Amino acid sequence: MSTSMTQLGVVKRNIARPDRAVVERLAAFGAATVHEAMGRVGLMKPYLRPIYAGGHVCGPAVTVLLHPGDNWMMHVVAEQIQPGDVVVAAVTADCTDGYFGDLLATSFQARGAMGLVIDGGVRDVKDLTAMQFPVWSKAISAKGTIKATIGSVNIAVVCAGAAVEPGDVIVADDDGVVVVPAALAGATADAAAQREASEAEKRRKLAAGVLGLDMYNMRGPLEKAGLKYID
Amino acid sequence: MSTSMTQLGVVKRNIARPDRAVVERLAAFGAATVHEAMGRVGLMKPYLRPIYAGGHVCGPAVTVLLHPGDNWMMHVVAEQIQPGDVVVAAVTADCTDGYFGDLLATSFQARGAMGLVIDGGVRDVKDLTAMQFPVWSKAISAKGTIKATIGSVNIAVVCAGAAVEPGDVIVADDDGVVVVPAALAGATADAAAQREASEAEKRRKLAAGVLGLDMYNMRGPLEKAGLKYID
Amino acid sequence: MSTSMTQLGVVKRNIARPDRAVVERLAAFGAATVHEAMGRVGLMKPYLRPIYAGGHVCGPAVTVLLHPGDNWMMHVVAEQIQPGDVVVAAVTADCTDGYFGDLLATSFQARGAMGLVIDGGVRDVKDLTAMQFPVWSKAISAKGTIKATIGSVNIAVVCAGAAVEPGDVIVADDDGVVVVPAALAGATADAAAQREASEAEKRRKLAAGVLGLDMYNMRGPLEKAGLKYID
Amino acid sequence: MSTSMTQLGVVKRNIARPDRAVVERLAAFGAATVHEAMGRVGLMKPYLRPIYAGGHVCGPAVTVLLHPGDNWMMHVVAEQIQPGDVVVAAVTADCTDGYFGDLLATSFQARGAMGLVIDGGVRDVKDLTAMQFPVWSKAISAKGTIKATIGSVNIAVVCAGAAVEPGDVIVADDDGVVVVPAALAGATADAAAQREASEAEKRRKLAAGVLGLDMYNMRGPLEKAGLKYID
Amino acid sequence: MSTSMTQLGVVKRNIARPDRAVVERLAAFGAATVHEAMGRVGLMKPYLRPIYAGGHVCGPAVTVLLHPGDNWMMHVVAEQIQPGDVVVAAVTADCTDGYFGDLLATSFQARGAMGLVIDGGVRDVKDLTAMQFPVWSKAISAKGTIKATIGSVNIAVVCAGAAVEPGDVIVADDDGVVVVPAALAGATADAAAQREASEAEKRRKLAAGVLGLDMYNMRGPLEKAGLKYID
Amino acid sequence: MSTSMTQLGVVKRNIARPDRAVVERLAAFGAATVHEAMGRVGLMKPYLRPIYAGGHVCGPAVTVLLHPGDNWMMHVVAEQIQPGDVVVAAVTADCTDGYFGDLLATSFQARGAMGLVIDGGVRDVKDLTAMQFPVWSKAISAKGTIKATIGSVNIAVVCAGAAVEPGDVIVADDDGVVVVPAALAGATADAAAQREASEAEKRRKLAAGVLGLDMYNMRGPLEKAGLKYID
Repeated sequence: MSTSMTQLGVVKRNIARPDRAVVERLAAFGAATVHEAMGRVGLMKPYLRPIYAGGHVCGPAVTVLLHPGDNWMMHVVAEQIQPGDVVVAAVTADCTDGYFGDLLATSFQARGAMGLVIDGGVRDVKDLTAMQFPVWSKAISAKGTIKATIGSVNIAVVCAGAAVEPGDVIVADDDGVVVVPAALAGATADAAAQREASEAEKRRKLAAGVLGLDMYNMRGPLEKAGLKYID
Repeated sequence: MSTSMTQLGVVKRNIARPDRAVVERLAAFGAATVHEAMGRVGLMKPYLRPIYAGGHVCGPAVTVLLHPGDNWMMHVVAEQIQPGDVVVAAVTADCTDGYFGDLLATSFQARGAMGLVIDGGVRDVKDLTAMQFPVWSKAISAKGTIKATIGSVNIAVVCAGAAVEPGDVIVADDDGVVVVPAALAGATADAAAQREASEAEKRRKLAAGVLGLDMYNMRGPLEKAGLKYID
Repeated sequence: MSTSMTQLGVVKRNIARPDRAVVERLAAFGAATVHEAMGRVGLMKPYLRPIYAGGHVCGPAVTVLLHPGDNWMMHVVAEQIQPGDVVVAAVTADCTDGYFGDLLATSFQARGAMGLVIDGGVRDVKDLTAMQFPVWSKAISAKGTIKATIGSVNIAVVCAGAAVEPGDVIVADDDGVVVVPAALAGATADAAAQREASEAEKRRKLAAGVLGLDMYNMRGPLEKAGLKYID
Repeated sequence: MSTSMTQLGVVKRNIARPDRAVVERLAAFGAATVHEAMGRVGLMKPYLRPIYAGGHVCGPAVTVLLHPGDNWMMHVVAEQIQPGDVVVAAVTADCTDGYFGDLLATSFQARGAMGLVIDGGVRDVKDLTAMQFPVWSKAISAKGTIKATIGSVNIAVVCAGAAVEPGDVIVADDDGVVVVPAALAGATADAAAQREASEAEKRRKLAAGVLGLDMYNMRGPLEKAGLKYID
Repeated sequence: MSTSMTQLGVVKRNIARPDRAVVERLAAFGAATVHEAMGRVGLMKPYLRPIYAGGHVCGPAVTVLLHPGDNWMMHVVAEQIQPGDVVVAAVTADCTDGYFGDLLATSFQARGAMGLVIDGGVRDVKDLTAMQFPVWSKAISAKGTIKATIGSVNIAVVCAGAAVEPGDVIVADDDGVVVVPAALAGATADAAAQREASEAEKRRKLAAGVLGLDMYNMRGPLEKAGLKYID
Repeated sequence: MSTSMTQLGVVKRNIARPDRAVVERLAAFGAATVHEAMGRVGLMKPYLRPIYAGGHVCGPAVTVLLHPGDNWMMHVVAEQIQPGDVVVAAVTADCTDGYFGDLLATSFQARGAMGLVIDGGVRDVKDLTAMQFPVWSKAISAKGTIKATIGSVNIAVVCAGAAVEPGDVIVADDDGVVVVPAALAGATADAAAQREASEAEKRRKLAAGVLGLDMYNMRGPLEKAGLKYID
C-alpha cells in the first residue's frame, strides 16, 4: 500500500428541486409519519439528534461531502443554497469535529437554508439555538476544522446510513431525519395524508379506552399465531 | 444450525401487585435514593434516558417481551394495564426501532399507565412530551415496527440489564430507572425514609461549609488507608 | 403516528455484471489499494470485520435488503447468485442477530458465491471457517431470525455506510470492504496497478533505511508549513 | 441523596445442579442450536466474546455478583466450584477491568471449572489460551482490581443481558453464550437433537444446489406476502 | 499475574493558580473560541455533556483521581477547593457510576466551586439543575459509589482524553470542555479576543449575504486545489 | 466563533531515553504485571487491541501527535526512531482512518522500531502480521489519509486515555498497553520482579487445589465485612 492521492472535487450547480407545492404538502407531516408513508425506508440512523427540541424542517437537499476534520466545502455549499433548502453534509469517515458554528449558520440562514443535517459534529450550539437554526448532528464538539482538502457538492452521498441525492426532500424533527426521493415526494405526501386522516378517529377511540386489540381486530390473528392467556 | 422455529407466547392476566400504600410511600423518593436504600442493586443501565426532563413515576411493573422490529405485543400489554402501572418493555435483541408513539401512548394513558420503560426506541416524542406521558428509552427513532411475531406479557424479563418480575415496583426519574422487588418494597421505603430523614441536617451543615471529611469522620480512615498530604 | 404498513418487496433477476476480465484484474489488489485507487471513497465502515483472518474476495455485488431480526430474503437472494458473486446484505435498522449460518452458507457456496458482506450478525462461525466461506459482519451472534417480512433483492442499498448498486464490484480482505461502481472498475484496476507498480521500489528503499521524508520530498513542504526542529 | 451504605453479601453453598446425563446430552450442541431449541431466548449479548476461538463449554452455572473494579468474590466463588461447572460473573455496573487472570484460572481449573463467562474484563489472555481455559468476556484489560467490597455467590444474576440462576446450564462457543434454565435442559436437548437430525439431509440437498426456497416451500408464502420478480 | 496492591494516595494542598485577572479575561469566551485560540488542542472528548444547557464556567482546575465505583476522594478534594475553582475528576477506568449528587454539590458550592467536570457519572441531576451547579459528565446514573480506596488530589490527570495539571484553566460550556495550561492562559485570552474582534464584522457581512468564499478569498485556492463547477 | 487557524508544529530531536538495562529488565514482564507494579495507573484504554496475538514490546516512547485523517507526521516521526523505540501516535480527535500500512512499517522496522501504538486505525494488517511488526490500534481500516497539516513529534501526548512523555517506557502485549514514566522504570521493574517471584509458589499451590481464600487469609476479612454462608 502506498500513500496519498488527490481527491478531485466537483460542484454541481443546477440540481432539480421538487415542486414547491409538493414540498409544502410534505411539510405538514412529521418524520415518523413520512417514514411510514415511504414504506419504512429512508431513515437516517437514530444517532443523529437535534441540537434543540422542537425544530422541524422539510426541504430539498443540497448535499456536501466532507473529509474528516475539514470543513472547507461548507463554504462552497453555502453558495449553492436556495431559499427553503436543507443542507445534508456527509463525511468520508467517522468524525465528531465541530464542522459548523454560528458564522456559517449566519451565512446559511442568509442564503435561505432551513437547517443542516450533518453526520459529524457542530459547535456554538447556544448561538444556533438562539438563532433558531436547527441542526441534526451526531455530536456537539468545540473542535474546529481545517480547510485543506476539497470534497464535492451536490453529488449523491450516504449520510448517517441513508442514501441522499441532491433534490431529495429531507423531513426532520425530534424523531429523526427521513429522506424522500424527489420522484416519490408527491405519492409520499398522499400516503402520509391518508394515514393522518384516520388518526384523529383512532386517537379519539383509544382515548376513550377502546383497545388497539379490538380497533385493529388483532385478537384473531394473535390467537392464530398461538398466543395463550393464562391466569 | 437450521432455520426458523415458532416462538410461543403467553399472557399472564392476574399478577400480584404490591399494596398501593407501599407504592405511595416509595413514590416519595427518587431513583437514586431508592437505589441506595435497596443496597445498590436493581438499577437499569444508564443508557436508558427519559425523553423529557422532570418525569417521575413509581408503580407496579407490567412486563412485555418484544422481538426486534416488532411491536405487536404492545397492543396486547395495553389490555393488562391497571391504573398506576408502569409498562416495562424488553426486547430479545438490541434494537433502536420506534416501538411506541402517540397512539399507543393515548391508549396506555387511557388505561391508567403512568409511563413506559423500554429497552428500545420510541417516536412522536414531541407529542408524548405534550401529553406528559413519560418514557425512558434507549433511543428515539422515527422507524416503525411490524406486527408479525408474538412475544409474552407479564413474564419475568431482563430490561436494560435489570431483572424485572411483573408486580415489581419501578421507580424512575431523571437519574434513571430502579426495580424494587415487590417483596422488598416496604422495607425499601423504610430505608429510603431513614436516609432522607438525615439529609436535611447534612445538607444544612454542608451548605454552612462543614466538610464531609469531618461530618462523616473520614480523616482517620483516610490516614489509616495511607493518604498523605503534601505542600 | 399510526401503526403498520406493508413493505412491498421486489426481486430484480437480471442485473448487469461487469466484465469478468475486469473483475479478475481488480482481484489482484487488496481493499486498501483499491480504496486509494478509487480516490478514497466507497469504503464500508470499519466496524465490519471478517469472521476469520486471511479471506479475500472480489466479485459483483448481489444485494439484499433485510428487516431487523428477519432473514427470509436470504433464501430469496440465494437463487439470484451466479458463480463469482459476493452477497451484500443491508438491514433497515441496526440489528446484531445471526442472519446467516452454515446451512445458508452451504447453499450460497453451492451457487458459487465467493462470500458475504452483512451489516448484521452471523453465526456458526466455526463451521463457516472450516468451510472457508468468508463473511464480513458487524457481529457474531447465536441469535436466529424469523421469516415474516419481505424485503428486496438487487436494489440499491446502503450497507455499513456505503451505497451499493447490484453489479458493483466488492473487494474485501482483512482491511475492510470497498465498493467499486461497475462503471469505474476498469479505471480503478488501472490506477491500482499503477500504484502497486511503484511500491516494490519504494519498499526496497524504505527497507534500506531511506526515509519517506526524502523519498517523497517532504522536507520542503513541511518547512513551508511551519514545522520547527528543536533539540 | 446521601452517601455510602453497606452491601451485604451472601454465599449459597448448596445449589441444585441438573442431572449430569442431561448436561452431557446438551454438550453435543453449539450455542446457536441450543438457542433455537430454547425458542430463541436466553442469549447473552453478543458483545461477550471468547478470548480464543474454538472453545466450547456446557455445564451448570455457579454465579457470582461483583462490584466495579473489585474481584474479591472471585476467590469466594472458587470454593463453590464443582467439576464441570461454568462460572458466571455479573457486575453491578459496566466495568472493563481485568477481574481474572492466570492465577485465578489455575485455581478454577484445579477445582474443575470448565470455563468462565464474565460481564467484565480479563487479563493474562496469552496464559489462559496456553492453559486452554476458555473465557467469554466483554473486554481484555491489564487493569487489576481491588478486594474491598463483598458481593454474593450463587444468587440469581443478570449477566450480559441474560438472567441466570445458579444451576442453569451454560452453553458457550464461538457464536456466544446461552443460558438454559435447569428445568428446561432435558427438553432443550431433545429439541436440539431433533433439529440436528434433519440438518444433515438439508445440508446435503443445499450442497447439491437445491434452494431453500424450494426445500422449505417458501415460494407460495413469499408470493402471498407480495414479493414481485422483475427483469 | 498476581493479585491486589495498595494504591497510595497523595493530596497536594498548595497549587499555583493563574492570576485572577487572566481567568476573568478568559471567562469572556466560549469553549469553541478558546479551543481555536489554543491552536486546536486541549479539548476533552465530546462524550462529556453538560447536565443542563446554558452553563458556562471558567476557573482553575482542582484535580482528583478516583477509582471505578469509589467516590471517597470527592470528599477529600472538597477541602482543597477555593472560590472560583472548577473540580476535574478523572477515573482510573471507564465507569458510569453516579459519583456526585446534591449533598456533595452543596458542599462544593459552599466552598466556592464553579462546577464539576467528571469522566464518570453523576446523579440528582434535577437538584443540581435547581441549584444551578453545572456538571459536565459522561453519564447520568442513580448508582452510588463506595468509599474504600484512596486516590489522589491535585496531581496531573487525564480526563476524557485531555491532560490536566492542577491550576490549568478549565473553560466549559454547551460546546464542551477545554483545558488551558496555566502558562498559556494570558496568550490564549489575547488570541481569543483577537478572534472575536473580527467576528462582529464577519457576522454582519455574512448576514448580508456575502459568501465566505469571497470574504475569505477561497475561490482561488479552491480552483488551485482542483475544484470543478459543472451544471 | 470564527474559522481556521494554523497549527504550528514542533519536532524535538533529542529526548532522554531510559537506561537500556532498565528497559531490558522491564521487558521480562507482561503489561498486567507492570500495571500492577506501577500501582495500577498508566494503562491505555482497553479499546486498543493488537492486530495479531502474541506480540510483546517494551521500549522508550517516541511520540507523535496527528490530526484526524492526516498521517503526514508519521513520516516525520520515522526519522526520530532509534533502535528499540516504540512509536506512540495520538490524534487530536477520534478517527479510525488507516494512518499506517506496510510501507511505513517497512520504514519503521528499518529504523529499528519495535512496534506502534496508535489511537487510530491501521491497514495492511495481513502484511504487518507477515512482517511481525506489532501494532496496537483502535481500528483496522482500509481508509488512507492525507498529508496536509503538521502536528508535532516528541511532545507530551494523551494516547487512548494515558499521558505519555517521550522516553517513557511502553510495555504492550495481548493484555494491553501500559506507560511507565521513565523515572519510575527501575522501581517498577523491581516491583514487578518481586511480584513474579512469589507467583510460581502461589501457582503451584492453587494448582494443587489450595484456595485463594486460605492462601491469602481472606476468610477473616470476608466475615468481618459481613459475608454470610447459607445452605
